[in-house]
Amino acid sequence: MTQPIITLLTDFGTRDSYVAQMKGVILGINPAAVIVDITHDIEPQSILQGAMCLDEAFDAFPAGTIHVVIVDPDVGTTRRRIAAEIGNQRYVGPDNGTLTLLSRRHAVQRVHNLNATQFHRHPVSATFHGRDLFSPVAAHWSLGNDISAFGDPVTIPLAELRFPKADKQAREILGEVLAIDRFGNITSNISGADLPLEFPATIFTHIGGHQLNRLSNYYSEHPPGDLVALIGSSGRLEVARNLGNAAEALQVTIGDEVYVKW
Amino acid sequence: MTQPIITLLTDFGTRDSYVAQMKGVILGINPAAVIVDITHDIEPQSILQGAMCLDEAFDAFPAGTIHVVIVDPDVGTTRRRIAAEIGNQRYVGPDNGTLTLLSRRHAVQRVHNLNATQFHRHPVSATFHGRDLFSPVAAHWSLGNDISAFGDPVTIPLAELRFPKADKQAREILGEVLAIDRFGNITSNISGADLPLEFPATIFTHIGGHQLNRLSNYYSEHPPGDLVALIGSSGRLEVARNLGNAAEALQVTIGDEVYVKW
Amino acid sequence: MTQPIITLLTDFGTRDSYVAQMKGVILGINPAAVIVDITHDIEPQSILQGAMCLDEAFDAFPAGTIHVVIVDPDVGTTRRRIAAEIGNQRYVGPDNGTLTLLSRRHAVQRVHNLNATQFHRHPVSATFHGRDLFSPVAAHWSLGNDISAFGDPVTIPLAELRFPKADKQAREILGEVLAIDRFGNITSNISGADLPLEFPATIFTHIGGHQLNRLSNYYSEHPPGDLVALIGSSGRLEVARNLGNAAEALQVTIGDEVYVKW
Repeated sequence: MTQPIITLLTDFGTRDSYVAQMKGVILGINPAAVIVDITHDIEPQSILQGAMCLDEAFDAFPAGTIHVVIVDPDVGTTRRRIAAEIGNQRYVGPDNGTLTLLSRRHAVQRVHNLNATQFHRHPVSATFHGRDLFSPVAAHWSLGNDISAFGDPVTIPLAELRFPKADKQAREILGEVLAIDRFGNITSNISGADLPLEFPATIFTHIGGHQLNRLSNYYSEHPPGDLVALIGSSGRLEVARNLGNAAEALQVTIGDEVYVKW
Repeated sequence: MTQPIITLLTDFGTRDSYVAQMKGVILGINPAAVIVDITHDIEPQSILQGAMCLDEAFDAFPAGTIHVVIVDPDVGTTRRRIAAEIGNQRYVGPDNGTLTLLSRRHAVQRVHNLNATQFHRHPVSATFHGRDLFSPVAAHWSLGNDISAFGDPVTIPLAELRFPKADKQAREILGEVLAIDRFGNITSNISGADLPLEFPATIFTHIGGHQLNRLSNYYSEHPPGDLVALIGSSGRLEVARNLGNAAEALQVTIGDEVYVKW
Repeated sequence: MTQPIITLLTDFGTRDSYVAQMKGVILGINPAAVIVDITHDIEPQSILQGAMCLDEAFDAFPAGTIHVVIVDPDVGTTRRRIAAEIGNQRYVGPDNGTLTLLSRRHAVQRVHNLNATQFHRHPVSATFHGRDLFSPVAAHWSLGNDISAFGDPVTIPLAELRFPKADKQAREILGEVLAIDRFGNITSNISGADLPLEFPATIFTHIGGHQLNRLSNYYSEHPPGDLVALIGSSGRLEVARNLGNAAEALQVTIGDEVYVKW
């Protein structure tokens, strides 16, 4: 039997049983599925945060992985429910912009509506398509069904979110804070690929009224408490504080300006 | 080898290693067990919340699933430790009322005490039967042992919790708030099966000093910010707020009155 | 195919996708790996708490288990990255003292540096060795490679943390609070093996200005609200409150003095 990976990425939290219900449904259809939680702590209804999280995690997973992403404030309405081949992996979820970032890096291939109701769990609750529609489709897909079995082809384009793009000039970039992680590390929307990385480069990063004068390689390159600008594990410009919390120290929040020149 | 599902539902939290210790013990006995967390964030010692959560999650799991539920304030005392066949699934845990709700919907069949000590992990800690007694029994059960191997038959009845039951009259029901989820959605103890669901029905739901005049199908049927009464994915009457937090908006807490008439 | 257990113990939290990225990398290398989360809620950069948690969980896992422990404030520096055989299980992570407690109870056997770069994920991020270095090594180890494949042998001794040791005299022990769990149960660094456990023994435990006059067997041996001293599931002296929170009641925090005499 195939043993494919199905990931779950939701805003359901882990205090209630919603996520477990999805897992029960998946394992009832494909007992060999390997289920991996990406996170369930997306801010309620933040499609943008879900899209960023999927984009960040995606490349770590092997070919064939099926990502079920349920940040779905429009559950029950006529928003499309889709399955999509993207790069060498797969997506199941609402067509609400979740793939916006990912589709800039990986080709979106076949996309199908999920209107073949024989793959749904009946009765389909109007408020929990994660359990009754997306999870069973993902499980059936992991069993080897072709994407075309799940419904009619979708004519691209898919829904798009407006994402804050960094504004790149010859020797400067104006971006903004995309995310702040548990450690208080600040991730910007400035790609490391857009910066001069042949060291030594003098790069000035402005954030929260603070200026950092060079790019570092890792957090603890400087003494404890020092602020550090570096290219983080997601490939984006980050500002961190060695053994401390940069976001707190700089009083920075999501959406704040990050400006780099060199 | 059999690959059965063993779920874990506890009030242990995930900050400490308690849950992981249970998983290590299970996998040491049955390496092929598929372990699913239902939740570990039950309010400490709230058997009632654990019972509700199990009841909510149960039907999403396939036949044969073994549910290990450890909300066990009386660990170490003489409260019975049991294995039970319920519907086509299975339960391992203390006999403290956890099955009260579930047993109204599914037949409790054979129930056995867990006094066959060869299936326990020795020495059995007086304070962690989850690891030393319930987990090993669940793992051995998943290997194909019959329930009768684990100890003497129990004479039903099992312990019962007093659950708040809705009071149903001809055209009205008085119930109360059972749970509030991460989104602030309010779940009552009023079953959708007791309401007139042939639309259009005029139903008045009173909660937190607020009146809702009809049942909706899904959260986003109304404009953002609007309150919605609907039958949730658990089959119970819920009150939600489209793209908002109904419990905060209505200042409602568990136990508050919900009144419906039509 | 081998189906070994790989545990993950980090300070990454579960709100971001870091942990999921590690799992994706592991499953890409060994699709049959069984991954168990110990916890990801270690206080950021608290190697001490990570070491205690690993020590507590270790004995519940079967022989051959690989524990990947990433509490790694020095990521990117020259701190050693190691694989180690300890007891009949295995460790992958930084050499930063995480094994200090465990190595007092289990023999550390072969230890190797992780300098064989063909087992790493390239490019290796300077800030996320958990994903690019430790996880792939653990996955390759789980496939049956010998530890010597991963790099040069390490000359013991490993890094050591200074751990608060209880001071044992003839009929008294001075220790301190090591941890407080979700229930408010207080764990000391006083081992049950150092206490006279042949009952009835009169033991006086002093903590937070409070005196308890005997050792109990389990939490609910006394009326609700009573404080209880007992040997917990980790084998250490604990102080708990039946159906309550002992740490809050006693205003006790980590590091506070615990004194026992008999």
